Amino acid sequence: MNNFDFYAPARIYFGKDEHKRIGALLKPRAKKVLLHYGGGSIKRNGIYDAIVGSLNEAGVPFVELGGVQPNPRLGLAHEGVALCRREGVDLILAVGGGSAIDSAKAIAMGALYDGDVWDYYETGKECKAALPIATVLTIPAAGSESSGDTVITNELGDRKYGYGSPQLRPLLSVINPEFFYTLPKDQVANGVADMMSHVFERYFTNTSHTDLTDGLCEATLRTLMRNAPIALENPTGYDAWAELGFAGTVAHNGLVGMGREQDWACHMMEHELSAMYDVAHGAGLAVLTPAWMQYVYKDNIPMFVQFAANVMGVSGSIRDSEAVIQEGIARLRAFFKRMGLAGTLGGLGIGTDKLEEMAKKSTGAAFDDEQPLGGLKKLYWQDVLNIYRLAQ
Amino acid sequence: MNNFDFYAPARIYFGKDEHKRIGALLKPRAKKVLLHYGGGSIKRNGIYDAIVGSLNEAGVPFVELGGVQPNPRLGLAHEGVALCRREGVDLILAVGGGSAIDSAKAIAMGALYDGDVWDYYETGKECKAALPIATVLTIPAAGSESSGDTVITNELGDRKYGYGSPQLRPLLSVINPEFFYTLPKDQVANGVADMMSHVFERYFTNTSHTDLTDGLCEATLRTLMRNAPIALENPTGYDAWAELGFAGTVAHNGLVGMGREQDWACHMMEHELSAMYDVAHGAGLAVLTPAWMQYVYKDNIPMFVQFAANVMGVSGSIRDSEAVIQEGIARLRAFFKRMGLAGTLGGLGIGTDKLEEMAKKSTGAAFDDEQPLGGLKKLYWQDVLNIYRLAQ
Repeated sequence: MNNFDFYAPARIYFGKDEHKRIGALLKPRAKKVLLHYGGGSIKRNGIYDAIVGSLNEAGVPFVELGGVQPNPRLGLAHEGVALCRREGVDLILAVGGGSAIDSAKAIAMGALYDGDVWDYYETGKECKAALPIATVLTIPAAGSESSGDTVITNELGDRKYGYGSPQLRPLLSVINPEFFYTLPKDQVANGVADMMSHVFERYFTNTSHTDLTDGLCEATLRTLMRNAPIALENPTGYDAWAELGFAGTVAHNGLVGMGREQDWACHMMEHELSAMYDVAHGAGLAVLTPAWMQYVYKDNIPMFVQFAANVMGVSGSIRDSEAVIQEGIARLRAFFKRMGLAGTLGGLGIGTDKLEEMAKKSTGAAFDDEQPLGGLKKLYWQDVLNIYRLAQ
Repeated sequence: MNNFDFYAPARIYFGKDEHKRIGALLKPRAKKVLLHYGGGSIKRNGIYDAIVGSLNEAGVPFVELGGVQPNPRLGLAHEGVALCRREGVDLILAVGGGSAIDSAKAIAMGALYDGDVWDYYETGKECKAALPIATVLTIPAAGSESSGDTVITNELGDRKYGYGSPQLRPLLSVINPEFFYTLPKDQVANGVADMMSHVFERYFTNTSHTDLTDGLCEATLRTLMRNAPIALENPTGYDAWAELGFAGTVAHNGLVGMGREQDWACHMMEHELSAMYDVAHGAGLAVLTPAWMQYVYKDNIPMFVQFAANVMGVSGSIRDSEAVIQEGIARLRAFFKRMGLAGTLGGLGIGTDKLEEMAKKSTGAAFDDEQPLGGLKKLYWQDVLNIYRLAQ
């Protein structure tokens, strides 16, 4: 086990009706709130009215900025920064999924920074201050409600970069699983693939003696895989949604990755797909992850045998490692298919013409600054290209 | 799943040499520290010198108060409160196990309270302010390094009461598993029983649809049971200690109990043993827990079948629930025995003459204020007496 520093201060208010307390929770913490959200679905399903009602009831003044898109754009973050400065906003309340929350984090940093907030994403420079952030989660997926991470797309140049800082961990997040009932099925499937990937990126490691976090990762993955089909088939069944909502937060609050070298190659490879083709992040991950497994498993056979046995339930003669691993990967593909997710890049509408360009961007080779991706196996741009081709 | 509010803000610095940064961590947070510790073992094994060295190097002024005993006493907490006021202490650093940390929490509350700090324990009144607390853990057991809980014994009247408040969650805790190498074997065994009990008290529940936390509980228990014998047999093997130290914190930071009705009957029944006979808390739990299981399992057969299968590894025809459960409990007893723990109250030197008195104290029947213990099954004093007798 490696040394680690675990810090997950976001307070999680979880369950039915918990959103009704958002006004009372923010009242002592904010003089003026920026209410930040997406494309308007929260206005159709009543969530917007409930949140505004709670803020008004508690007497919390707010201004608002909607319009966050999937793969949130830098341009809107710039707008938000200007609005916060003009209006003297001192706390940002994101209502939505990972896109709204990631956009809120960009605004929170930008509002207290003299330069362009894109600097943080481009250079990785340390963020020393940001406005406090609260969230009301409407999509279980990104885990951004408990993490200090944000991903923003710079629409000039098709670049999608991530950034992380303890300054960006939300103060508090409300998760009401009833809010998930009206999600489109494809968004649910994408979210499940994203949550699973947050665990996979931490789970697959060459670090040894990680019993506890191995077990926590495996329990989280099994919970997601058991409950996701139930939620899809019975969209108003509270319990399965509650498991997904809770698991999504545990998947990304840091705990299950403590003491382990982490990987994150699939996320980096997927960001290129999203930046170039605007595909949903989870949909891209569901295609790339099995291909990545196929490409790297020989570098750590015991890790992938454990995955097949403990996560995918492959039993019997587990000493036949090649067969066990192939069965594990096949079961993962079958799970994604059952969720209605595409199994190939072609299924996402991605052709072959830009694979090399994306591969070179993913490692920085395109900018003459190559850093290999991944932890379990170091991946250079040729490796990434091979994985894209395996996923075709 | 029940609604919940999850808040675990204690920052955990985990691993080799992490204690060396304690001075630097406290410097910006404290003008004067109370260094609080136990019976002097930290002076023999070098931990005291290392901590004092780090405080001095960072220029953190401190006063000190040693002498915390197992089952920490109110009298010493009173001394600590007076010292803090006299010296203007603004942060308490506990170096030790649960006793030193629990005592530090009492002092932290008492220093900012006009009355006797025992009021909190006796009446359960809300704590509105306490001095900040930091810890350096030397025994993996109580989980007090990440919890807001404290247990104090009032030596006048043999009363041992617990109290919990978000104000008492440590700001930060350092866990260096190398510090566990010199622990006596019985203390290790007691600590493991305590950590397992922290999970059991949350795990055994009548709440349904708790997939994720079921899995997290089971993974934590399996980790403890797998690594404890390794640590006992190889006391300078870092990896097994690291698993125990990490699991002890996860067992008690709140996460694995979220959304579940919890039990805590074994802890309440054990507090009477410790208060009356000064037995180690973990040793008492190891005796009472299997007896409690035997007494209550018929109230939730599926829960105990799951325990036997998923925690104790009972496989085969799990539909034969009676046999499966008995095998699960027998394996737990065998595990405690392998750890060198007593299997009966007699083995702890406890006779039969005070069982009824303790049973009546445990539920409050002795004070004409009976509140049944437990969640999975409500236990009145006659039930507690029956369990004590099963444990004889």
